[in-house]
Amino acid sequence: MKSQRLKYIFLTALLFAVTAVHAANPLPSWNNTAVKQEIISFVETVSIADSADFVPESARIAVFDNDGTLWSEQPMYFQLAFILDRLKDMAPQHPDWQKNELFAAALNGDLKTVASGGEHALLTLTTATHASMTTDEFAATVAEWIKTAKHPKTGMLYTEMVYQPMLELLDYLRANGFKIFIVSGGGIDFMRVFAEDVYGVPPEQIIGSSIQLQFEMRGDTPVIKRLPKINFINDKEGKPVGIQMHIGRRPIAAFGNSDGDLQMLQWTDGGKGAHFCLYVHHTDAEREWAYDRDSHIGKLDKGLREAKKKGWTVVDMKKDWKQIFPFETEQ
Amino acid sequence: MKSQRLKYIFLTALLFAVTAVHAANPLPSWNNTAVKQEIISFVETVSIADSADFVPESARIAVFDNDGTLWSEQPMYFQLAFILDRLKDMAPQHPDWQKNELFAAALNGDLKTVASGGEHALLTLTTATHASMTTDEFAATVAEWIKTAKHPKTGMLYTEMVYQPMLELLDYLRANGFKIFIVSGGGIDFMRVFAEDVYGVPPEQIIGSSIQLQFEMRGDTPVIKRLPKINFINDKEGKPVGIQMHIGRRPIAAFGNSDGDLQMLQWTDGGKGAHFCLYVHHTDAEREWAYDRDSHIGKLDKGLREAKKKGWTVVDMKKDWKQIFPFETEQ
Repeated sequence: MKSQRLKYIFLTALLFAVTAVHAANPLPSWNNTAVKQEIISFVETVSIADSADFVPESARIAVFDNDGTLWSEQPMYFQLAFILDRLKDMAPQHPDWQKNELFAAALNGDLKTVASGGEHALLTLTTATHASMTTDEFAATVAEWIKTAKHPKTGMLYTEMVYQPMLELLDYLRANGFKIFIVSGGGIDFMRVFAEDVYGVPPEQIIGSSIQLQFEMRGDTPVIKRLPKINFINDKEGKPVGIQMHIGRRPIAAFGNSDGDLQMLQWTDGGKGAHFCLYVHHTDAEREWAYDRDSHIGKLDKGLREAKKKGWTVVDMKKDWKQIFPFETEQ
Repeated sequence: MKSQRLKYIFLTALLFAVTAVHAANPLPSWNNTAVKQEIISFVETVSIADSADFVPESARIAVFDNDGTLWSEQPMYFQLAFILDRLKDMAPQHPDWQKNELFAAALNGDLKTVASGGEHALLTLTTATHASMTTDEFAATVAEWIKTAKHPKTGMLYTEMVYQPMLELLDYLRANGFKIFIVSGGGIDFMRVFAEDVYGVPPEQIIGSSIQLQFEMRGDTPVIKRLPKINFINDKEGKPVGIQMHIGRRPIAAFGNSDGDLQMLQWTDGGKGAHFCLYVHHTDAEREWAYDRDSHIGKLDKGLREAKKKGWTVVDMKKDWKQIFPFETEQ
């Protein structure tokens, strides 16, 4: 009995110790640099009740870009990998694709030709693979792919290529009463399939690009069809618009990594109360990738200049992040 | 000391008694009819952990129409009253309106002519009064109007003409882990101004019709402009589409009052797990209004037939509601 009791006391003490450590160090994968202090200082400023910059919980809205901010986006947007895999699966039913320059290039993995077609080419491939089925069928297709497809460089599942420091940041913000929205150029119904499991962000807090939908009754069964037409591009100037459409109030914190996020950060920066803008700068060619001004994917040029001018926080991945991917701890 | 102690015991007993009454009768303005039992039975079915039809909290999504379901919609949609008031305010800057049949009719309160123009006329008046300003300016205009404008028949504020039984239902659902969304044909940014105060529903849980938005920097100030172009009509087939766009999963409970809500109820009814569909039928000409098949506003015809066929719950306002408006208790 006595040893049982001692064991109990020991475990309780351990529990308290762990709790204390957690509270003292809420972002363990972040190095103790200025960036980490800026984040903590902002969160305390808005969430401590007697702070002059206190923000009520209902207004603590934080928006996060996805590609390059929450997970990697090299050597191509992960949703493009999904598109290429879908094209291969669908090709037998579409013999005409081999005669089409764009589709043939995509099927042969010739990304250079695909990229040379710009946004228009990408949208053509998107509607060809994301439409002409019901919302339930599309969700099932993405769910199957995301469970099995592997990243070409690391061999990891795409959902394993998320940033450990950002997962901790999401948890830290939620623990302090923030409501998190993902605001991405990626497909809204693509992200919804995995975002709740991977980031703890439910479908109704995902904002993204979309194709047109149509409701219809098939006999006694209601379905929502996905039409091969773009509805909304949630990128650049589209991001504040998507935020207004879905959230209806201005975020007080915004996190991005590219010029495509600039307007979202500007919109957040224009708020009257306390607010916080952060760019993730990809500087770690060894553990992840290093790119900015000259990159076709996740180009960060104007944004970096604006961040300097406005005093926004910039994460130097190499310097500020102790660990990048969750799987690193297992190595 | 003794009397202090007795007082404490008394107060504690009172507290328990009140709590018990509240738990036993969560919907005090609902008469003890079958409808009330159907609501309570559904909520218990999905929220009691060992129920066969248990639904985890994150999936307990309930959608409510607004006009005619949460507040009145006679003698005209309240947002139309806002449009008419705005037209009068703006008329001095638009002398040409007097020469236009539709605008002149609207300015003279000739609702018959306005109505004869159908949806197109209504959209023309909407864009004329809801656009060509920033989102902040529009919200300020609505906020000022909703604080002061009075209903032509009752003389009450429009926000006082909400249904007490539905306010209790919103509270009851929230207390049982539901997340409430308003899914209305009305303007999304119109409703957001008052829905949090009046219904406890935050801006990010409002879905409605919208006009196009555009982000721009005015010097160093970011603004979102409202363009004079319709973006989306959240009515009829639009409602399930709006639900998919904003929520991304199927509701398990849907509440409406007109044929404009039919597709939302059908979509909810098509779900695999336990679900609940309810129509509010306006049957009380004395305390509110009585209308259905032949009404231009809130027409309920197909919906009533479908409700019968599918076994949906139908509220007979006269019979099922003990009280209609919150202000009745003060009379």
